[in-house]
Amino acid sequence: MGEAEYGGSGGMMMGKNKDRRIVVAVDESEESMYALSWCLTNLLSQQAKTNNIISINNNTIVLLYVKPPPPAYSSMDPTGYLFAGDVVATMEKYSRDLANSVMNRAEEVYRGFNTTTIKVEKKIGSGDAKNVICVAVEKLAADVLVMGSHDYGFFKRALLGSVSDYCSKHVKCPLVVVKRPKNA
Amino acid sequence: MGEAEYGGSGGMMMGKNKDRRIVVAVDESEESMYALSWCLTNLLSQQAKTNNIISINNNTIVLLYVKPPPPAYSSMDPTGYLFAGDVVATMEKYSRDLANSVMNRAEEVYRGFNTTTIKVEKKIGSGDAKNVICVAVEKLAADVLVMGSHDYGFFKRALLGSVSDYCSKHVKCPLVVVKRPKNA
Repeated sequence: MGEAEYGGSGGMMMGKNKDRRIVVAVDESEESMYALSWCLTNLLSQQAKTNNIISINNNTIVLLYVKPPPPAYSSMDPTGYLFAGDVVATMEKYSRDLANSVMNRAEEVYRGFNTTTIKVEKKIGSGDAKNVICVAVEKLAADVLVMGSHDYGFFKRALLGSVSDYCSKHVKCPLVVVKRPKNA
Repeated sequence: MGEAEYGGSGGMMMGKNKDRRIVVAVDESEESMYALSWCLTNLLSQQAKTNNIISINNNTIVLLYVKPPPPAYSSMDPTGYLFAGDVVATMEKYSRDLANSVMNRAEEVYRGFNTTTIKVEKKIGSGDAKNVICVAVEKLAADVLVMGSHDYGFFKRALLGSVSDYCSKHVKCPLVVVKRPKNA
């Protein structure tokens, strides 16, 4: 491996005027909203100042929400047999409502910041969160992936926590795992 | 849990004029130097601009290098018995040289950036890297921990890779795991 030169403009990595595309995985948790807020404060609310040349990066923030996969009922499942239509419709509505609610919440968060130089895109995926996130990061050619971390003990949060472990192994870009301090 | 307000100045999290302390774990790898460079470009080379108020953050970057623990020989180990004095002295010298070399390399990296508003501190620890890093992050009250990620297959790199997994579970601040793109 040759010696790489990291000094100088620092533009080598990002390109001084290269658009940055930052994917923020959001869900219904406070942790993910904190992660978005952290990202806006630490990665986006900035004018890059490198070697005394001030350049405003063109930043795109992609809010990525992953809906859980639709429930699968076997024809032998009495619950599915009796209620499948209603239950599935209700769950689908709930899932849509949740997605909207998460995106609205995220919108509230970034509206509080100076986002005039930031483009915001919203993407909603469906399936296993960790796979969907990794595939999306690859497809979107993200420069950074930002996600919240859930460090207390409910089953769901243990599952969500493992998403960041999985992503740290599988995404090719830098990953920011943001923990929400107890007092925030 | 009450509704937290993440909008507004964004100063809630970092404090608009609060000093930020960013710990960058460095080692002899290219990946860690890339992580330092990424950090300087994306987290530090900036003037925070929030709600149209430009404020320059006081950033301190703490370069943290962890030396491996000194080798322990049992008195029953013939290699240790025969060569302990020489071997230990040689390894200690090697370890010191390595620490110096890593710090010098890191210095080269951050000198290439505009670091006039950034204080740089150097800390050298000794022991199991993952534990030392987590303890240091806590002690230094770090706002962010930045580390490189090693994703190819040598034994040592597999071990180093697990450091970021461990840290993501144990540190309380946001963790940035930076992967070095293949073309950098």
